[in-house]
Amino acid sequence: NQALSGDRTAGEPELKSVGDGSIGNNQGFSLRRVRLVFSGDINEYISLYLQPDFATTNGDLHFAQLRDAYADLAFDKAHEYRIRAGQSKVPFGWENLQSSQNRLTLDRDDALNSAVPSERDLGLFAYWSPSDVQKLWKDLAKKNLKTSGDYGVLGLGVYNGQGVNKAEANDNLYLVAHSTYPFDLGFMGLRGQVVEVGADAMSGRFNRSTSAYTSRFGSGTPTARDNSEDRVGVHAVLFPQPFGLQAEWNWGAGPTLNPSANRIERQNLEGGYVQAMYKIDNVFGTKGSMMPYVKWQTYDGAWKGVANAPRVNVDEVEAGVEYQINKALELTVAYATMNRTQIQTQTTAAGFLQQASGDLIRTQLQFNY
Amino acid sequence: NQALSGDRTAGEPELKSVGDGSIGNNQGFSLRRVRLVFSGDINEYISLYLQPDFATTNGDLHFAQLRDAYADLAFDKAHEYRIRAGQSKVPFGWENLQSSQNRLTLDRDDALNSAVPSERDLGLFAYWSPSDVQKLWKDLAKKNLKTSGDYGVLGLGVYNGQGVNKAEANDNLYLVAHSTYPFDLGFMGLRGQVVEVGADAMSGRFNRSTSAYTSRFGSGTPTARDNSEDRVGVHAVLFPQPFGLQAEWNWGAGPTLNPSANRIERQNLEGGYVQAMYKIDNVFGTKGSMMPYVKWQTYDGAWKGVANAPRVNVDEVEAGVEYQINKALELTVAYATMNRTQIQTQTTAAGFLQQASGDLIRTQLQFNY
Amino acid sequence: NQALSGDRTAGEPELKSVGDGSIGNNQGFSLRRVRLVFSGDINEYISLYLQPDFATTNGDLHFAQLRDAYADLAFDKAHEYRIRAGQSKVPFGWENLQSSQNRLTLDRDDALNSAVPSERDLGLFAYWSPSDVQKLWKDLAKKNLKTSGDYGVLGLGVYNGQGVNKAEANDNLYLVAHSTYPFDLGFMGLRGQVVEVGADAMSGRFNRSTSAYTSRFGSGTPTARDNSEDRVGVHAVLFPQPFGLQAEWNWGAGPTLNPSANRIERQNLEGGYVQAMYKIDNVFGTKGSMMPYVKWQTYDGAWKGVANAPRVNVDEVEAGVEYQINKALELTVAYATMNRTQIQTQTTAAGFLQQASGDLIRTQLQFNY
Repeated sequence: NQALSGDRTAGEPELKSVGDGSIGNNQGFSLRRVRLVFSGDINEYISLYLQPDFATTNGDLHFAQLRDAYADLAFDKAHEYRIRAGQSKVPFGWENLQSSQNRLTLDRDDALNSAVPSERDLGLFAYWSPSDVQKLWKDLAKKNLKTSGDYGVLGLGVYNGQGVNKAEANDNLYLVAHSTYPFDLGFMGLRGQVVEVGADAMSGRFNRSTSAYTSRFGSGTPTARDNSEDRVGVHAVLFPQPFGLQAEWNWGAGPTLNPSANRIERQNLEGGYVQAMYKIDNVFGTKGSMMPYVKWQTYDGAWKGVANAPRVNVDEVEAGVEYQINKALELTVAYATMNRTQIQTQTTAAGFLQQASGDLIRTQLQFNY
Repeated sequence: NQALSGDRTAGEPELKSVGDGSIGNNQGFSLRRVRLVFSGDINEYISLYLQPDFATTNGDLHFAQLRDAYADLAFDKAHEYRIRAGQSKVPFGWENLQSSQNRLTLDRDDALNSAVPSERDLGLFAYWSPSDVQKLWKDLAKKNLKTSGDYGVLGLGVYNGQGVNKAEANDNLYLVAHSTYPFDLGFMGLRGQVVEVGADAMSGRFNRSTSAYTSRFGSGTPTARDNSEDRVGVHAVLFPQPFGLQAEWNWGAGPTLNPSANRIERQNLEGGYVQAMYKIDNVFGTKGSMMPYVKWQTYDGAWKGVANAPRVNVDEVEAGVEYQINKALELTVAYATMNRTQIQTQTTAAGFLQQASGDLIRTQLQFNY
Repeated sequence: NQALSGDRTAGEPELKSVGDGSIGNNQGFSLRRVRLVFSGDINEYISLYLQPDFATTNGDLHFAQLRDAYADLAFDKAHEYRIRAGQSKVPFGWENLQSSQNRLTLDRDDALNSAVPSERDLGLFAYWSPSDVQKLWKDLAKKNLKTSGDYGVLGLGVYNGQGVNKAEANDNLYLVAHSTYPFDLGFMGLRGQVVEVGADAMSGRFNRSTSAYTSRFGSGTPTARDNSEDRVGVHAVLFPQPFGLQAEWNWGAGPTLNPSANRIERQNLEGGYVQAMYKIDNVFGTKGSMMPYVKWQTYDGAWKGVANAPRVNVDEVEAGVEYQINKALELTVAYATMNRTQIQTQTTAAGFLQQASGDLIRTQLQFNY
C-alpha cells in the first residue's frame, strides 16, 4: 500500500538589503526552499518518507539534494513507540524541530540551530509518544497553532554528527536526548491554554575541516586540538490563544577557532531567544489569520557549520507579522535590527571575525500544499 | 486538492557528425531532456508547477536541476488576469515560449534565444489572456497545431537577469514586455486559418563573468565597461492548415567582447529566422502526421550565455521532417548546413572566434507523456 | 495513460570496519541507495521508466542523479520482441542484471561487474522473450525466488561504453550480446526445480582518462596504447528450492595500467564466483524467510571504472544470512574475509597497487516498496 503526498514551500520573492554579512549585496529574487515530499505507509507498522530539496546550490543553483530519507518502524498500532532510521531531524531543541512551514519567523535562532546546522543527520532515533499527547498535538494543529511536530515526549538518538549530506569523518557517533511535554492548563481554570516545556542534551565528536583564514586577530590554517561538543538546552512554549510566548536557551562547549593561538580548541557557548506573538483570526472578515510577533535572540559561541568553526556573537531583535491569507498562501514582512560576527568570507582581515550591524526589511511569499 | 501529471521528453538517440564547434566530435547517444512535471491546483485561484530536468551536466552527467518552479495566482475564475511568481519562462519571443515538445525544429533560433538563454529566470510576471483568446489557443492545440502556450496577450515582468539557475550578481532587475494576438481569418473568407502577430521588448543590466581567453584578434581577461542590454522583437505566425509560415526578428544592443580592445562593451545585435512548414495528416493511412519544414536563420551579436559574451555570427539553413507516429512517439530527421562562430573553447587562438561551417544530419527520437 | 509506482531501497545502517581500501576508516551510518521509480505504460506498446538515485555524491552527499531513463517499444502485444532506448542496464552477466533489491549478497562480484561498472549505459537494446519463459520467470518471482529480471532469452545492444552518466569520449560504440534460458527440470522428475544457463559476449573501445599516479612499481601519467576490450562470460543458476547454486565466470582482455612501462595496454583478465544458498520459509512461525549463503569470488584484471584502469587482484569469501522479515523490510548480516588490490588512492607509493586483506562484518537494513 502506497500513497504520494506533496509539500512544497517556496519562499520568494525575498528582497534583501543592508551590507550585512549574512544578507549581502547583489541580491534580487531567490528561491529558499522548493521541496517535494514522497511518503507512504507500507503496512501498519512501517512508513517511508523522502524529501528532496530543489533549491540546493552546487556551483550553479537549484540542484536536487536530499533533506529527509527515513523509515519509521512502529512497535505498536498506536505508534506510541517508534524507531526512525535514516536521514532525519536530530531531536535537539524545539524550534529546530518545527517545520519551516509552521515557523513564524523567517529564520531559526542561531543559538539552538548552531547545535545541528540544517537540523538533520544520518542515524538511528527512538521516540515515545503516548496516545493522549499525540491527540493533544493534533488538536493544537487543527486550531492552526504551530506545534513542532511529533518527535516524542522522549527521544533518544545516535547519529554521525558531521552534518547533513556530509561524509562521516571519524569513528565517533553523536548521542542526543530529547524531552518535551504539553500541559493542558484546564485544571487551573485556563481552558484550552497549553504550555509545553522540555529539556535536551547532546554529546559527541566531529571533524571540523580547517582551511586558511585571515583576520585581524591572527591568521593561518588552524590545528585541531579538541573536537568534542556537549550541550544542554531547555524550552518553554505557551501556544498563542490569542497571546503566546516561546523561549529556548542552551549552554555548552564545543570546538571553536582561537585565532590568536591559531588552533581549534574547546570553548564555552551560550545563547537563546524569547519570542512573543499574538494570533488574530478572521482578519478583514475573511478566514485568514494574522500573527504579529517580536523575537529577541542572542548567541555567543562557535558556528560549527562553516570551516574552522569560528566564534560568532549575535544580538538581534526582529519584529514582523505573518498573514496567512488561506491554506496555500502566506505572506510575511519582518523588520530586524541585528549585530553579528562576519564569518562567511574568511580571507579578508578587514572583514573576518568583525562585528557587523544593520537594519533590514524582508518580505517572503510562501506557497504550501 | 492536488494532482500529479507527468511530461517526459527524452530526445535520443542523437547521432551527431561534422567538426562543428557546437556539435563536436566523439559523440554517441545522448539524452537531451529528461523532465518530470509535478503540478497541481491548490484552489480555484492558486496553482503550483515544478519541473526538474534529469539531464543536467554537473561534472558528470544526468543530475537533477530545476527548470521551472512557480506559482500562478489568478485574480478571477476565468484566469484572465494572472501573476506568476518564481522561476519560469521569460516572455520574450514566440519560439522561446514554445515548449520543446511542441517545437518542430531540433533547436531554437540563436537570434531570439540569445536574449534569454535557457528561456527562464527568477522573477515576477503578470499576464492578461482574454477568455476568447484562451479558447482559440485551445482549439488550435486540439487540431495538433503547435502554439507557444498561454503567456498572455499582454505580459509584463521583472526578473534577476543573470540566467537560469545562476545567482543574482547585481542589484538591477530586468524588465520585459510581451504582446501577441491570434487573428482568426474567417472574416476574410479563410475559414479556420489563424495568423498570430506580436512584439516584445526587454531592458536590463547583468554581470557577465569574465575569464582569460586567447584568440587571433586579441587575448587577456577583459574588463567590463557596460553591461546594459536592450532589445525589441517582432513575430508573425501562420499556423499550418496545411501550409504554415513562421518568422521572428529582433534588434538591440548588449554587452559584447571586443577582443582587440580587450574589454566588454555595448555593441549592436540583430537577427531572426523564417520558417515554412506543411502538415500532412493520416500518413500511410494511420493517425500519424508528418510535417516537413525548412528554416533559415541568421544572427550577428553577442552570446551572453557564455563567459566574456563573445560575438557570434550564425547563418544556417535546416530542412527536416517530423513524423508524429502517435501521441507518445515522435521521430525527427533534419539536415542542416551551418556557418557559425566557435565560442565554446576560448583558449585556443586557432579556434576561438573563428568561423566554422559544415553539413550535418541529426536524428531525434522523442517520447512524450 | 500514466501510472506512478515507487521503489525505494535504502541500505543502512552499514557499520563498516577493517582498514581495507574499499571499506575504509571513519565511517558511520550511510545511505547506499535511495531511489524512486516513475514508470508508466503510455499505450499497449510503449512504456517509459525513470529512476533517479538520491544517494549520489557530488562534492557533498545525496544529490539526485539518473540511474535509468528508457523507453520500451514492444512490437507485439505479448511483448515478446522489444527495443529499449535510453539509459538502462547493459545485458552482460546474470548478477549484473539482478536488481539490488533481489540480490542476496551486499555487493556484486568484481569479475563480471568490472565489465560494466554501475551496470548501465546509454544505447539501444533489442530483447526477445518468448511468452512461456516470461511466465516461468514470473512464477519464480511469485515464489520469492530471486530472478535477474526480464532481459530476454536473447539480447543484443549497442551503447556508448564510457560508463553511466559519463560523456561519450570517442566515436566507437560497444556491442553486447546476451543469452540465458531457464530449464524446468520437471522432465527429470525434479518437479519445480529450475536451472538457468546462458552466455554473454561484449566488445568495444573506450577512452580511459589518465591521471598522475605513484606506486612502488612505477609512477607518472600513463600513455594510452590500446583501448579495445573484449569479454565472454557464462552463467548457471539453480534456484534455491530449498538448496541453490549460482556461478558465473568471464574471460577477456582490456585496457590495463602497466606501471613499469607507464602505459595503458591490452592485458588479459579473468574471474568469477560460485555461490551456494539455502532458503528457509516461515522462520519462527512467521511469514518471513531466511536465506543463509556463502560466496567465493576471484578476479584478476583491470578495473576500468577508475582512472588509469589499474589491475586488481581480488580473492574473497563471504558468508551471510538475509532475513526477509516481511515484504518491506529486510536485514542482512554478512561476514567476509577479503584480499584485494588497493586502487582508490593512487598517489601514495605505499598504498597504490598493494594487496590489502582483512575480515569484516557488515549489517544492512533495507526497505522496499
